[in-house]
Amino acid sequence: MPELRRDPVIGRWVIISTERANRPHDFFHHEVRVQASTGLCPFCPGQESLTPTEILAYRPQGGEHNSSGWTVRVVPNKFPALQVEGELGREGIGLYDRMNGVGAHEVIIETADHKETLATLSPKLIEDVLWAFRDRIVDLKRDVRLRYILVFKNHGAAAGATLEHTHSQLIALPVIPTNVLAEIEGCRTHFQQKERCIYCDIIRQEISDRARLVAENPEFLAITPFASRFPFEMWILPKRHAAYFEESQKTQFDMLARTLSECLRRMDHVLTRPAYNYILHTSPLHEKTGDFYHWHIELIPKLTQVAGFEWGTGFYINPVTPEEAARVLREAEI
Amino acid sequence: MPELRRDPVIGRWVIISTERANRPHDFFHHEVRVQASTGLCPFCPGQESLTPTEILAYRPQGGEHNSSGWTVRVVPNKFPALQVEGELGREGIGLYDRMNGVGAHEVIIETADHKETLATLSPKLIEDVLWAFRDRIVDLKRDVRLRYILVFKNHGAAAGATLEHTHSQLIALPVIPTNVLAEIEGCRTHFQQKERCIYCDIIRQEISDRARLVAENPEFLAITPFASRFPFEMWILPKRHAAYFEESQKTQFDMLARTLSECLRRMDHVLTRPAYNYILHTSPLHEKTGDFYHWHIELIPKLTQVAGFEWGTGFYINPVTPEEAARVLREAEI
Repeated sequence: MPELRRDPVIGRWVIISTERANRPHDFFHHEVRVQASTGLCPFCPGQESLTPTEILAYRPQGGEHNSSGWTVRVVPNKFPALQVEGELGREGIGLYDRMNGVGAHEVIIETADHKETLATLSPKLIEDVLWAFRDRIVDLKRDVRLRYILVFKNHGAAAGATLEHTHSQLIALPVIPTNVLAEIEGCRTHFQQKERCIYCDIIRQEISDRARLVAENPEFLAITPFASRFPFEMWILPKRHAAYFEESQKTQFDMLARTLSECLRRMDHVLTRPAYNYILHTSPLHEKTGDFYHWHIELIPKLTQVAGFEWGTGFYINPVTPEEAARVLREAEI
Repeated sequence: MPELRRDPVIGRWVIISTERANRPHDFFHHEVRVQASTGLCPFCPGQESLTPTEILAYRPQGGEHNSSGWTVRVVPNKFPALQVEGELGREGIGLYDRMNGVGAHEVIIETADHKETLATLSPKLIEDVLWAFRDRIVDLKRDVRLRYILVFKNHGAAAGATLEHTHSQLIALPVIPTNVLAEIEGCRTHFQQKERCIYCDIIRQEISDRARLVAENPEFLAITPFASRFPFEMWILPKRHAAYFEESQKTQFDMLARTLSECLRRMDHVLTRPAYNYILHTSPLHEKTGDFYHWHIELIPKLTQVAGFEWGTGFYINPVTPEEAARVLREAEI
């Protein structure tokens, strides 16, 4: 019998329908194979002049701005969805509202080595990527025009990546995305009723239940969420309550890098290097959400056929139970 | 300068960023070419035994149940996401809620002719497809366990179709999808403030403005919505206020078939037969939404690369302005 499950935060129902896993073509798989650089990659060392001028770079041995020798490098997106300069120009047009596309669109190049992926980097190097996310958020937060910072990764063409060299992206927005607002509202309602954070409650229940645990260390928990939209969807949550990713402590960046590395390696092992996305869900910039919001990362391998109606309805059909996905990921010998 | 636009119903902001249209690989295009049937298609006449037993069929010349001679045929999905039989079995598991996947999952085969698509069918034949939607909704509405009926179409593999023979689908659910709830809430709020339907206000503004008009007849309007998520996204709305699709009058089915046909032919002409989805947005079954909700169809050609983060955030980047899309669609010589 298929099952309907409700996400406790935003109230979204999903169908968990394992019978459909037998349907022809329901799963597709494109292994992401990273080739040696052709020498034309704009994210490779020595090609720094092919990107817009850098915003941030870590150069452990020192060195010139926009030269090689960096381990992590942040540059503006060459085809930005938003522009840094300008007024917001908020305007009503009859019923409608518009404003100028003011914001930032940046690329975080995660390593100088074209052949690596985030899953093959050491946790120490992943930690530097997380520090780059944090440094950019802290810097952009000073811009009072901005209200939300989205950090995400498209890995592999099937997940929307247009360049192979491993990178994440950051989009800073003068508005708050609707799904973030829905999460905030869900958390606020739970807190008003119970004076507790709903994600803290989820963490307690998952640690006690164990059926959906993928990885755990003193600071972080990785689970397949109860109402997973996608097969092998994972959430990584800090065990300590915290609304703002960028306020994490130093040891937490270390522990998060280990957890993220472990999840990616388990996923790569079980699903043979799939295309995937992750999205950092952190608090809006100037909202007082400290009591009730809880930042986390959502990691989604791109395995299922594009089911168009799901975009229009927010309604998902998942052919793999989260418990089975967690078991397989947990038992992978990595 | 990119532009941020807000959907007036659900408050979702989108980025309209035409600069990004120049980005390599941002558009992809797979023309949907319908081949002659291989003789193995389960939706072709003579193959009725390959589908589960039919629920509804229109046979203008009469004929046996599950025989050929039909023009439109409705059958259960062979790989259903939900099952008709059983109790709801609502249950709480700690924080979480679940219930049995009770519901219906049906396929509406839109024509007996394998070589046709909905765009190449005559409006008269499309009208019969709309009657089949209506007849199935009216029938399923009697089942008190059900709360929402989703009617949608995946056309072409890129839009999620697994079979070529043109068909729509229906999923009847014991819950209401979150995006539908968000629309209902937006409409309710507008009505409480102004005692008017927000979609009626949109229709008045679009008829007066004309910049986003694609097609119009005495009963229906087709527009590219002000805050379109996708290039060439279209909405088809009845001009007369109505919350329930299935309560439309006979002349309205005729006029809707003409409008839908015109939109599909304009889209096929301009975009060279793209993959697409449409979704019927109609009122939940047992809710009193008559005053403030307004049913409509959302039609979305599948043109853009899968941008994974958009699923996680509900935040969309659209490289084509709705005004430009409407102009091109309107001026197409069909």
